[in-house]
Amino acid sequence: MYRYKIGFIGLGLMGGSLSIALQKLPSKDYYLGYDHNTLHCQQALALNLVDKIALSLEEIKSCDIIFISIPVDGIIAVSQLLVGISKDCTVIDLGSTKEKISASIPPSIRSNFVTAHPMTGTEKFGPTSAIDNLYTDKVVVLCDIRKSGSHQEKIAKTLFTDIGMNIVCMDAKEHDRHAAFISHMPHALSYALANAVIQQEDATSIIALAGGGFRDMSRIAKSSPSMWEDIFRQNKTNVLEALDSFQLELAKCQEMVENEEWDKLNSWMKDANTLHTILK
Amino acid sequence: MYRYKIGFIGLGLMGGSLSIALQKLPSKDYYLGYDHNTLHCQQALALNLVDKIALSLEEIKSCDIIFISIPVDGIIAVSQLLVGISKDCTVIDLGSTKEKISASIPPSIRSNFVTAHPMTGTEKFGPTSAIDNLYTDKVVVLCDIRKSGSHQEKIAKTLFTDIGMNIVCMDAKEHDRHAAFISHMPHALSYALANAVIQQEDATSIIALAGGGFRDMSRIAKSSPSMWEDIFRQNKTNVLEALDSFQLELAKCQEMVENEEWDKLNSWMKDANTLHTILK
Repeated sequence: MYRYKIGFIGLGLMGGSLSIALQKLPSKDYYLGYDHNTLHCQQALALNLVDKIALSLEEIKSCDIIFISIPVDGIIAVSQLLVGISKDCTVIDLGSTKEKISASIPPSIRSNFVTAHPMTGTEKFGPTSAIDNLYTDKVVVLCDIRKSGSHQEKIAKTLFTDIGMNIVCMDAKEHDRHAAFISHMPHALSYALANAVIQQEDATSIIALAGGGFRDMSRIAKSSPSMWEDIFRQNKTNVLEALDSFQLELAKCQEMVENEEWDKLNSWMKDANTLHTILK
Repeated sequence: MYRYKIGFIGLGLMGGSLSIALQKLPSKDYYLGYDHNTLHCQQALALNLVDKIALSLEEIKSCDIIFISIPVDGIIAVSQLLVGISKDCTVIDLGSTKEKISASIPPSIRSNFVTAHPMTGTEKFGPTSAIDNLYTDKVVVLCDIRKSGSHQEKIAKTLFTDIGMNIVCMDAKEHDRHAAFISHMPHALSYALANAVIQQEDATSIIALAGGGFRDMSRIAKSSPSMWEDIFRQNKTNVLEALDSFQLELAKCQEMVENEEWDKLNSWMKDANTLHTILK
């Protein structure tokens, strides 16, 4: 016998790693997977990330808990199809944007939903990239939690706590602005850095000199373009604001170097150093 | 009895980690340290990074091999004071810029010098940040090697190979342009990213959401401002060129998001993904 029947819509890095985390808990659950990519379905089964692949979304709708871990435009599309689930069903989406998702959930099932953003991931994707401890000691943001049913809120908080996450609650609008600064804009920088270097005539000999700094700065430029296209689309306004803030700082740096204002540049770098008194 | 008397001018991360690497070799050398920071001298002794602290630069001048691992303006200053060393002495500087250093070495001791840039490091500094394997499997660029004596070239190549480094030779001018793209400009981005985020009104609650991407992108914003002030000064022209190339890419990204050119943005991100077919 199992405790919950848990459905995963999306069997990539996030869904797969969540299954690994849940399987380490003492309670035994049953895992049903669903993914439009048939290779991913086969891989998820082979890796024991799920007990069974659902043949249709209808089958998933009978689950006690449903995690949606697919690109954010897909989350909006799928949530429309979940109308009719039981009032006790808990749906948790793991999208990196929250405002448009939260607003688009059909009113009849709004209280079934907990809109969550686990602040973790890697640049890899697909079930084979699923790893142990992806969620351990990481933050998960729960948005607009007052719109969730109390049963659903309890289920989500318990599960995320059980797998070692730290819960932060905020409204979806605030989340999207925060996420633009701490995640979405940095991804844009990494993509731009990669493109700036590979477009140099002697790119290969430049890249041959890459040390740890460049590797770290360009790591997330490996991330999935289709996933990030959706995020930039859904969070356009905040991403542009965060990019403007960054551009302003970079323009200061360029100006100080150009004008040889070295003391000022030194102070500006000291200001940047203080980040790490806040970032533990 | 020891093989070489090796002097370290500068007992920070680079010099300290080099001592750790050399001490793992079968041959026994004698290590003499010199640093204007007396705390660093005490720490280097306590950590067994050196056998003795030299009381003066004159004492260091009697070494068989001298490593200079201090900020790049300091390298230029110190190299002026090494006039009078034996013709068999090998001086290896580890500065992150090479053109100005290479050109400023007094002609009478130019052949004593091997100007090197190990493409490794961390954001930390001082002897307590010295770590094992900092140099293992990393690239070291030797610049203007034809200006070094054949004895000095041989000594440097043997030592770097012995500690597991991969040697790349290029002229100092080419090195400085490459280093601007692969190291110096990315440091400027990291500092700018840190400053853009900490200047937000709600910086603390934004930073509380930091995941791996932001941590990686902002790691090198912890680096020493005085060290980086020197690098930006010495490599001003190349750094500005690299920043321009980056700005061009970031402006493209902003424009595509602004104009909602999602297919184009997706292709641009796919281009960035290809970096990692070159970067192993």
